[in-house]
Amino acid sequence: MTINAQQELRIDVREASKGVVHVVDRAEYVRRAREGGTLDDAWKAMADLGLLGLGVGEQDGGSGEGITGPVALMEALSEAGVPPVLYLLTAFARTAIQRHGTDEQRRRFLAPTVTGQMKIAFAITEADAGTNSFAMQTFAGRDGDHYVLNGEKLYISAADNADYIMVVARTTRRRDTEDRRVGLSVLMVDRHTAGVGLTPMKIDLHSPERQFFLHLDDVHVPVENLVGVQDDGMRTLFDALNPERLLVSAWAIGLGQHALQRGVDYVRERSPFGTPIGSYQAVQHPLARANAHLAAARVMLYAACEAFDNGEDPGANANMAKLLASEAANAAADAVIQSFGGSAFDADSDIVTLWPMIRLLRIAPINNEMILNYISERILRLPKSY
Amino acid sequence: MTINAQQELRIDVREASKGVVHVVDRAEYVRRAREGGTLDDAWKAMADLGLLGLGVGEQDGGSGEGITGPVALMEALSEAGVPPVLYLLTAFARTAIQRHGTDEQRRRFLAPTVTGQMKIAFAITEADAGTNSFAMQTFAGRDGDHYVLNGEKLYISAADNADYIMVVARTTRRRDTEDRRVGLSVLMVDRHTAGVGLTPMKIDLHSPERQFFLHLDDVHVPVENLVGVQDDGMRTLFDALNPERLLVSAWAIGLGQHALQRGVDYVRERSPFGTPIGSYQAVQHPLARANAHLAAARVMLYAACEAFDNGEDPGANANMAKLLASEAANAAADAVIQSFGGSAFDADSDIVTLWPMIRLLRIAPINNEMILNYISERILRLPKSY
Amino acid sequence: MTINAQQELRIDVREASKGVVHVVDRAEYVRRAREGGTLDDAWKAMADLGLLGLGVGEQDGGSGEGITGPVALMEALSEAGVPPVLYLLTAFARTAIQRHGTDEQRRRFLAPTVTGQMKIAFAITEADAGTNSFAMQTFAGRDGDHYVLNGEKLYISAADNADYIMVVARTTRRRDTEDRRVGLSVLMVDRHTAGVGLTPMKIDLHSPERQFFLHLDDVHVPVENLVGVQDDGMRTLFDALNPERLLVSAWAIGLGQHALQRGVDYVRERSPFGTPIGSYQAVQHPLARANAHLAAARVMLYAACEAFDNGEDPGANANMAKLLASEAANAAADAVIQSFGGSAFDADSDIVTLWPMIRLLRIAPINNEMILNYISERILRLPKSY
Amino acid sequence: MTINAQQELRIDVREASKGVVHVVDRAEYVRRAREGGTLDDAWKAMADLGLLGLGVGEQDGGSGEGITGPVALMEALSEAGVPPVLYLLTAFARTAIQRHGTDEQRRRFLAPTVTGQMKIAFAITEADAGTNSFAMQTFAGRDGDHYVLNGEKLYISAADNADYIMVVARTTRRRDTEDRRVGLSVLMVDRHTAGVGLTPMKIDLHSPERQFFLHLDDVHVPVENLVGVQDDGMRTLFDALNPERLLVSAWAIGLGQHALQRGVDYVRERSPFGTPIGSYQAVQHPLARANAHLAAARVMLYAACEAFDNGEDPGANANMAKLLASEAANAAADAVIQSFGGSAFDADSDIVTLWPMIRLLRIAPINNEMILNYISERILRLPKSY
Repeated sequence: MTINAQQELRIDVREASKGVVHVVDRAEYVRRAREGGTLDDAWKAMADLGLLGLGVGEQDGGSGEGITGPVALMEALSEAGVPPVLYLLTAFARTAIQRHGTDEQRRRFLAPTVTGQMKIAFAITEADAGTNSFAMQTFAGRDGDHYVLNGEKLYISAADNADYIMVVARTTRRRDTEDRRVGLSVLMVDRHTAGVGLTPMKIDLHSPERQFFLHLDDVHVPVENLVGVQDDGMRTLFDALNPERLLVSAWAIGLGQHALQRGVDYVRERSPFGTPIGSYQAVQHPLARANAHLAAARVMLYAACEAFDNGEDPGANANMAKLLASEAANAAADAVIQSFGGSAFDADSDIVTLWPMIRLLRIAPINNEMILNYISERILRLPKSY
Repeated sequence: MTINAQQELRIDVREASKGVVHVVDRAEYVRRAREGGTLDDAWKAMADLGLLGLGVGEQDGGSGEGITGPVALMEALSEAGVPPVLYLLTAFARTAIQRHGTDEQRRRFLAPTVTGQMKIAFAITEADAGTNSFAMQTFAGRDGDHYVLNGEKLYISAADNADYIMVVARTTRRRDTEDRRVGLSVLMVDRHTAGVGLTPMKIDLHSPERQFFLHLDDVHVPVENLVGVQDDGMRTLFDALNPERLLVSAWAIGLGQHALQRGVDYVRERSPFGTPIGSYQAVQHPLARANAHLAAARVMLYAACEAFDNGEDPGANANMAKLLASEAANAAADAVIQSFGGSAFDADSDIVTLWPMIRLLRIAPINNEMILNYISERILRLPKSY
Repeated sequence: MTINAQQELRIDVREASKGVVHVVDRAEYVRRAREGGTLDDAWKAMADLGLLGLGVGEQDGGSGEGITGPVALMEALSEAGVPPVLYLLTAFARTAIQRHGTDEQRRRFLAPTVTGQMKIAFAITEADAGTNSFAMQTFAGRDGDHYVLNGEKLYISAADNADYIMVVARTTRRRDTEDRRVGLSVLMVDRHTAGVGLTPMKIDLHSPERQFFLHLDDVHVPVENLVGVQDDGMRTLFDALNPERLLVSAWAIGLGQHALQRGVDYVRERSPFGTPIGSYQAVQHPLARANAHLAAARVMLYAACEAFDNGEDPGANANMAKLLASEAANAAADAVIQSFGGSAFDADSDIVTLWPMIRLLRIAPINNEMILNYISERILRLPKSY
Repeated sequence: MTINAQQELRIDVREASKGVVHVVDRAEYVRRAREGGTLDDAWKAMADLGLLGLGVGEQDGGSGEGITGPVALMEALSEAGVPPVLYLLTAFARTAIQRHGTDEQRRRFLAPTVTGQMKIAFAITEADAGTNSFAMQTFAGRDGDHYVLNGEKLYISAADNADYIMVVARTTRRRDTEDRRVGLSVLMVDRHTAGVGLTPMKIDLHSPERQFFLHLDDVHVPVENLVGVQDDGMRTLFDALNPERLLVSAWAIGLGQHALQRGVDYVRERSPFGTPIGSYQAVQHPLARANAHLAAARVMLYAACEAFDNGEDPGANANMAKLLASEAANAAADAVIQSFGGSAFDADSDIVTLWPMIRLLRIAPINNEMILNYISERILRLPKSY
């Protein structure tokens, strides 16, 4: 895709996304975060506007195969202050299915996400394993034509509103394989299967979408719900986690830009000394610097999307984009909080409410230190540090 | 005071403060922040332990005149995670009263604070004036033996639990004086006087002590409640705001140290890859750096206390201490959040709950940009920038 | 151009540039910096390899009109540690000539640069004006078919090796125009004209190319050497200074990458404690972070090139690229110096020698504070701050 | 000592040091750095003014035993831009001799340093060992009443002007001891002994004092030149290296303050847009921030001096002071370079010439990463990271 074509797609998606924001704007999003409520109507608008078809091939009922479209949508909605995290999860889960699923799986899991009938959550993290996914304990033992799944996951976003959960589990225990990378598998788990339990976590990101513990007690999963090859889940994950990096970067850049714009609007007006505080370099330069870093993360993100869509390994750029996007968004949020002064902490200003989600993105879905390790080892070819 | 004597005082106060923390520890503080409740019992413990006498001269019923004692107490309680903001306000208000009050005022307002019978809040900030206090609109017109006070203040901490509020108001309107610094006065306002109204602000600092709008509608204040000279309130404020800087620095350093210790404890144990993450330099160095910056802010703080207690102008050191303390505390909090990873955002970890108050201290009671302006103008003798 | 095509061009240029580095490599470059010598042979190699035709249209004897090619060449040679600054100047000067020159000027000034016969320096900065070009005093008075040029410029790079100098001068004095932007003109001055004098500046960037004062005493410049319209030099400059930003970004990114690679090579080997210091996160993470910032600046740079080549205003991206590139290069250099420890300061390690040029790029040709002002005003639409 | 007494000492020393600066001021120092010359006349002035007696007990011919005096002198001369590094080395070497030397050694090595007849350099670092002193190879074998010393040291400052060199060597080889900390010894080596060779290093810190390789070939050192106990040199070093940290902090703070003052003077005048650039927050705030960090490092430094002089372990504060002082000085230098713009690189401005020495102090005599390791392990009680 040319840079121009990419920019046009980004602009088109952004334009179309306004129809979604018309249904749930930032104020409504914050209201639901506080009082309860889902994003189902926003999701329906996304379907009606054809936006859910982005990223799914035409043969599967979508309008294009690339990750660029979903990334542009995630960015646009985040910039409007209404990031749909379950959409993000669904989008990368189906990318993995497109690349590794059977025809039957493509039929079962792609078309319904285009119409908005199906939403897919994702479960990989465990309490003791943390960033070390290879240490996970969740186990799926084969029993005839089923896997029997046991374990506990956490930080599962919006799981209560998902129809399926893409679960990563060990099918060979760590102790039974020399290579820790071997033995993982990816399973599509119907959320309403017996044995699937959800408990809300005490995490308040000021979002209508909540975080959950996922309890898996003897959950029976049909073998045809295995995505990719048993024990070789790393290969499938590769096409889930790289898109995840890209979509998360879009989330961060969008939110950072949202915060930045709010700050800019404020400092143009606020004038305790008679002139707008936006004319003071101590106020404007941190905003300007954040703008530059957000812009750089954005061009890197779309370059990574192009690489991914061309079948190249986007790892380097995707990881760097996540690092830079999350840091740029945090720099923006910090500058905006400082610009607002005390009123940043007044709930009505909806500034302090932006912070937890933005801050989390330096940590989740993978912390930036692990990304620096990745750059050190994979790009700079330095020795492992941990 | 020798450096050693200062350190001993600090250690003694810290030791004594454990009796306060025994009454309200961090967990209880957070519980009250969530469910309601005051710090009255902690305040009573402070009185019983003789801690409230610190900073008040013996002739006024206290145990020592310096600011060093109250600063040490504020630091110790903050480091325990239970910063008593109304104490901070009371402590600097009475410093101003000691230096500028009449004998009668010293009798009325100092002794009762030593026994814990009286707590004093402080009101200076207004919505449109922000950091530019000279632009305040609140006006106290003389009417016989009273001032009649009208205006609206905000960000008034713990006002609902105060007996008196030290209010800064104009007694000469801005338009009636050439020198904007002239015309302010400092009044002790009984909170239960007719016309005094409080409305809670929507600010959640995860503290039992809340922020309020203060409405002043034809509030009658006896002229004997004027502290210092009418229209020359700047002189009185000088001995309130410098101690405030010192106490706020202690608040920041204590909270930063509290956060840091929590992080250190965590990274010594957390071991997703088999060794404690505290052994990784990417984790330990930001904590170590924060420790160094907290320690430096602390020595500067106590040097500034010594200057203040010796009757010198502590302005330079007090302002630099506030800048450095608040930034060090924020660096500590940031490093700790990153160390905790996702669990930092789980309310049960009580990490994300530490953040808003720490972040606010880069802004309140004066933002760090104004302090950089102060350093530029007063210390470096550079031209005014705003 | 597609992202892929751009990458291919970049790779091709980089490959071809090895022929230049074969003639003057880093060691030789440093030797000449110390002992004297020009880059004439490197320049000849660039001509022989067809690299000088990049950026010049085919009708003018070149191989392509875009700025992308020259940017790629500047990046490649900088990354090899042998940045040719006079090439950079020539490249952006002829971009302005291509867009604003007469056919005759295109014939006189473009073809000879493709063969390497002509090199063009650039003179805009004056001592008292600094970053405020509008305050320049150099004046070109019209006298028949000549301009008579008087003034003094400084920081004129490699002027002793240039054939022509593109000089910016006032043709209408500042006092005679209301709009300070009116009255500038761009003149091509033969360096060997009577009245042109050069004095070396005492600036050591560890480069064979030196900085000069340029003295202009009654220099007669034929009117046909005016590029663009008299008094409307800003329009011509627009197509010189934007390409300059782009080429300078390439210079910074290349040098930063050169430094980074040197550091990476060193920390893979250096092992005072038995394992390579490159395995310590305190060493590797700053290098990794610099790599990410260099990469982001690079994608932004090439996106800006694409915009420029498409005739769009590249101002936003070109300025942000310069800001980010120069800061990333400095972060890289700083991390590398710290990695080398004391030996960074040993001339034989050629690390400390890299620093002045890299540091200068946060200042020249325009300081980053002015770029933050640009972003604030032009992108964020904030009030002017200075 | 009270804080006040300490401040008075600092002021007195600073006042007296003007007599030294009168002999060699910054301009003269830079001239000698360029053209050659020693600081012998400055040294003589220090003796004449009684400054060399600071830090030496009265019984040994000095005027006071503390480290505070020498630190104040080092700070004052550094702030004047004329840091005497050989004095720094002499000062900490004799501290070790005072605490660990025999009466005879005190007589031989202390009194002559007070009169200025003797200067002492210091040699510990080796090429392969770097920051890991325990890995040193230099060996002193006992042969009758002599040690025979062999090895090679580097980064030996001002060795050509020293009378004695305090050399750290192994007296038991690493392989012959389980505890790597055992087996080091501290020897006073007469520089003119046979076998002592010096080769200049190619390091240009823009100082009249140069760096050397020190070659030790069968150098015979009388056993009475052993300071402290054989094989237990770590104990002696403890009282050399902690004072070194303190003196180096003073060096950094002084130089940083020197740079800062130069920057402040410049930005008060420089006015390309009509008002001094010192009125722009982008210029003034980095200078103000550097001032605050220098001030904080300074109070921490003098608190550490007090601890050392009281016989307490100054390790924590001394190390933190070194970290903070060197970083603050670098922040100051960076802000000043940016403030000067291009002219910072003109040798006549003597700004770029300040940088290498300031930058080195983040690395030497111990790099800041090792200090962060120290803080992590010794203060925060975190696991070793390397």
